[in-house]
Amino acid sequence: MNRVVLVGAGFGGLYAAQALKRAPIDLTVIDRRNFHLFQPLVYQVATGGLSPGEIASPVRHVLSRQRNTRVWMAEVRDIQVDRRVVLLGDGEAPYDTLILATGAHHHYFGHDEWEPLAPGLKTIEDAIEIRRRILRAFECAEREPDAAERRAWLTFAIVGGGPTGVELAGALGEIANDTLRHDFRHIDPSEAVILLVEGTDRVLPSFPPDLSAAAARSLAGLGVQVRTHSMVTGLDRAGVTVRTGDAVERIAAKTVLWAAGVEASELGKIVSERTGAPLDRAGRLIVEPDLTVPGHPEIFVIGDLAHFSHQTGQPLPGVAPVAMAEGRYVARAMQTRLRGETPPPFHYFDKGELATIGRNRAVAAFGRLHISGPFAWFVWLFVHLMYLVEFDNRLLVLVEWVYDYITRNRGARLITGGQ
Amino acid sequence: MNRVVLVGAGFGGLYAAQALKRAPIDLTVIDRRNFHLFQPLVYQVATGGLSPGEIASPVRHVLSRQRNTRVWMAEVRDIQVDRRVVLLGDGEAPYDTLILATGAHHHYFGHDEWEPLAPGLKTIEDAIEIRRRILRAFECAEREPDAAERRAWLTFAIVGGGPTGVELAGALGEIANDTLRHDFRHIDPSEAVILLVEGTDRVLPSFPPDLSAAAARSLAGLGVQVRTHSMVTGLDRAGVTVRTGDAVERIAAKTVLWAAGVEASELGKIVSERTGAPLDRAGRLIVEPDLTVPGHPEIFVIGDLAHFSHQTGQPLPGVAPVAMAEGRYVARAMQTRLRGETPPPFHYFDKGELATIGRNRAVAAFGRLHISGPFAWFVWLFVHLMYLVEFDNRLLVLVEWVYDYITRNRGARLITGGQ
Repeated sequence: MNRVVLVGAGFGGLYAAQALKRAPIDLTVIDRRNFHLFQPLVYQVATGGLSPGEIASPVRHVLSRQRNTRVWMAEVRDIQVDRRVVLLGDGEAPYDTLILATGAHHHYFGHDEWEPLAPGLKTIEDAIEIRRRILRAFECAEREPDAAERRAWLTFAIVGGGPTGVELAGALGEIANDTLRHDFRHIDPSEAVILLVEGTDRVLPSFPPDLSAAAARSLAGLGVQVRTHSMVTGLDRAGVTVRTGDAVERIAAKTVLWAAGVEASELGKIVSERTGAPLDRAGRLIVEPDLTVPGHPEIFVIGDLAHFSHQTGQPLPGVAPVAMAEGRYVARAMQTRLRGETPPPFHYFDKGELATIGRNRAVAAFGRLHISGPFAWFVWLFVHLMYLVEFDNRLLVLVEWVYDYITRNRGARLITGGQ
Repeated sequence: MNRVVLVGAGFGGLYAAQALKRAPIDLTVIDRRNFHLFQPLVYQVATGGLSPGEIASPVRHVLSRQRNTRVWMAEVRDIQVDRRVVLLGDGEAPYDTLILATGAHHHYFGHDEWEPLAPGLKTIEDAIEIRRRILRAFECAEREPDAAERRAWLTFAIVGGGPTGVELAGALGEIANDTLRHDFRHIDPSEAVILLVEGTDRVLPSFPPDLSAAAARSLAGLGVQVRTHSMVTGLDRAGVTVRTGDAVERIAAKTVLWAAGVEASELGKIVSERTGAPLDRAGRLIVEPDLTVPGHPEIFVIGDLAHFSHQTGQPLPGVAPVAMAEGRYVARAMQTRLRGETPPPFHYFDKGELATIGRNRAVAAFGRLHISGPFAWFVWLFVHLMYLVEFDNRLLVLVEWVYDYITRNRGARLITGGQ
């Protein structure tokens, strides 16, 4: 029986596991968390719109009916490629085929000291911490007698104008202008300043320019100030230093959120050291046309950990549809091989890009079809909810969403955890 | 304008605040958290049935339409009764009338070193920590090669057989026998041992004996082992020592939960020192017939912080209906006084007691009417959901409950936080 070990239960890993449901293999799925996280909606947890449980599903439960599969909650420490064994903190897992799908975490470009000052948005814990900081800032502003300090509490800087930064900024705009409208006595939440700092010439640089422009208009409508061509050069408890061309500005902001960049998981480096496989600058493993590690056809790499550029010359973007397609491909390729045949190379069929801004605006590019505004928002909602419903019967999230949409409420506004 | 400061936004505090909605006063509500927590359902968060956001409501939002009220998230450090000022960590709040409703926290009877080993169930953070420990125990058991260790991972000891202990034990029984049934490969979750250790002669000692017996039968049906007349005399990482009469038994259990006792909040001691007011053994302030501190008619004490025994000679129990009634009384009494009249003494009309066991059993005592079984469970559900719906339009919790009931799912099974 072919022993398959799969590390990482994100989009890529879980789709591979599910596609191997009926394969004649012995599958071990390893993740250090016990749940799969629906990453595209984590910003909703960070802004009080959804609860963690609504966008996470226990891996074990998702795969419970799959008789050829066991699930282990464990952390991978190393891989012995000669012995074909994955070393865990407390044991090991031997494999004939290995699938690596451990994704990426955020990256501070050599400024690791910024991490506690400007949390990124990858894990549930990140989201709860960001939620805590946002809500606490309004609470502190309400009781702050000094006008300058109050303004600093009400200034939110978001670093990075990609989909995550745009979605965070949009949700924050909605919170300040709408959700909290009647809740305070001394401050007016709509006076909050929301700054979106982006290094290139436009927000959503991976989207077509007309959609970037539409997104910028929607953001402006929510009171978000977009600064393009701008870099954060300094960051401390009191605020950020932003350089735009030659102009350097100091902005007092007590809340800074990081949405500027990611780096592949540590496992990339380990595999590179053990196999000599090349890494790109973001720490991703540069893979063969069949998503395997060069010289190691028994090791597949998918999702944000993989750098696949055989199709267009450019690496495929680190988004969920790519990871899902790679996961499905690997499952198919493995079964083709078990039949003694050679799988065709991986080919990604572009499913388009989507980003949402606030409660009723979005932008979407499907090939040459570009849409924006409320209709794009419905498309966004439909795509995300269909995934959730298909995946784990999360009909309730749809109910909650409709309900919140009508009542303009954000029910999960809790300040928990803390320093 | 009468300046009223109210400390603590639990059941007592929030009901007082809401009942003061139209009073000609200037009300400041102070709580160190930004949300009101629906305490009777915290055990559902601890067992993965509900998400924190579903049983918590931002205080600020609940009171947002109340024009005479401001809400401060702050911690009370001290009270200067002569100056009539509440001292906060960062400022102060002067009052003409003070309402104290800071409740209770759990208490380890002189064994404070047990707290990290056996978490109690008061806050959202407690619930998430308990959820983490319960779910992690099953995960560790699945991968544990040693049989004795595996049994220790699958043994759960709950200390205290009051409503919290019974509800935790029932939910755990349900998780082991039902929710996780198909999820594991090496262990059978239904082999989990759930131990409920109670010092008196029966579970739910505050209920009528026939209902204690009914609860014990329901618990047995869920595989819970009840040990009455038993005390925990030792507790460490490996397990508990239980004494029953003269017999002392050592039980290997990696998960121990505390539901054995509470102590009033620190503020009781502070008020006692500042005013000379007597405390009872649980740290509660012994109040006058009108719920004021002796010699200080301007200081009201309600809920779990108050010891009120003028009605029956026994102190009223620390349950939500008592706190709510006291909150409403204080609001009324204050307005009576503002009109220059003397309020009548507080009188509690007993609303009965309810406790639930698993997914379809409960016990309920309303005066001489005692019910148990599925019908009592419906009553329990109705009473709790009506409160949630009345309070904050939490219709969704009802939807989720019905949905989970039908699908036998517990969606919020996340292991988050932790070491």
